[in-house]
Amino acid sequence: MAKEKTLEDLFHDHLKDIFYAEKKILKSLPKMAKAAQSKALKAAVEKHRGETEVHVQRLEKVFDIFGKRAQGKTCPAIDGILKEGDETLKDYKGMAALDAGIIASAQAVEHYEITRYGTLKRWAETLGMSDAARLLGQTLGEESKTDQALDGLAESANPAALAA
Amino acid sequence: MAKEKTLEDLFHDHLKDIFYAEKKILKSLPKMAKAAQSKALKAAVEKHRGETEVHVQRLEKVFDIFGKRAQGKTCPAIDGILKEGDETLKDYKGMAALDAGIIASAQAVEHYEITRYGTLKRWAETLGMSDAARLLGQTLGEESKTDQALDGLAESANPAALAA
Repeated sequence: MAKEKTLEDLFHDHLKDIFYAEKKILKSLPKMAKAAQSKALKAAVEKHRGETEVHVQRLEKVFDIFGKRAQGKTCPAIDGILKEGDETLKDYKGMAALDAGIIASAQAVEHYEITRYGTLKRWAETLGMSDAARLLGQTLGEESKTDQALDGLAESANPAALAA
Repeated sequence: MAKEKTLEDLFHDHLKDIFYAEKKILKSLPKMAKAAQSKALKAAVEKHRGETEVHVQRLEKVFDIFGKRAQGKTCPAIDGILKEGDETLKDYKGMAALDAGIIASAQAVEHYEITRYGTLKRWAETLGMSDAARLLGQTLGEESKTDQALDGLAESANPAALAA
């Protein structure tokens, strides 16, 4: 019989998943920033790159609180999301619609993070790790703000893409 | 030189992406409903299965408004998200933490749909397709409600998982 797995195991599995995801995102953001045509989008992606470095450090602290070594685990979800983002960068390179596509890709990344951090924060609370819940909540708040900032940029990016 | 691609192409690409995703989700939901341990989660997933059938039909209408044949395009993002969901079903089969894992998987699916429908609705508005924007907005609203319902279920699922 398989060993009983608990909410602690779920927390650990998903912590490794988002740790892998954040590190992959960290590698992808410079490509997006370089490709972005508008200064505002470039600046937003670069700002988020800095935040993402902090998110990785926070996850290392959460692993520490949880008493486990910081370690990633392949996350097919973020691999798929970033693969689609790469396709958009390639297919729309140099075209007026590119920024609208980059924003869509970046928002898909943000929403993946929002759902995972929301889940992890809830589980940390249930498991009585209030310091970990606070760290996860800080990152969750920053991911949500980035998504909202991208919403704002999307409003201005679309007319340009349409005029092409 | 590559042919200039516009916001219409982006809209078409992402419409095919979510059409493929909805059909894959439609196949996955019965597995999740069957595995769910609590009656409330089982019922929520089954309800969402019915909604998803309507979402596919709405997308067919959007393709029609857009003047294109309803057609999917492989979406590595949803493939990855559902792959992780399948792993959770397998790893936590018959264990008390399973429902918490199913809710996390279902919320990752919902957030992918929320970001894609949000983007498609915005682009439909920019492209002057108000009927398509309305249909996409209806689905977006239902996906958000499902995510909120799952939030509520998560609150009750966690203590049970912890007690295991």
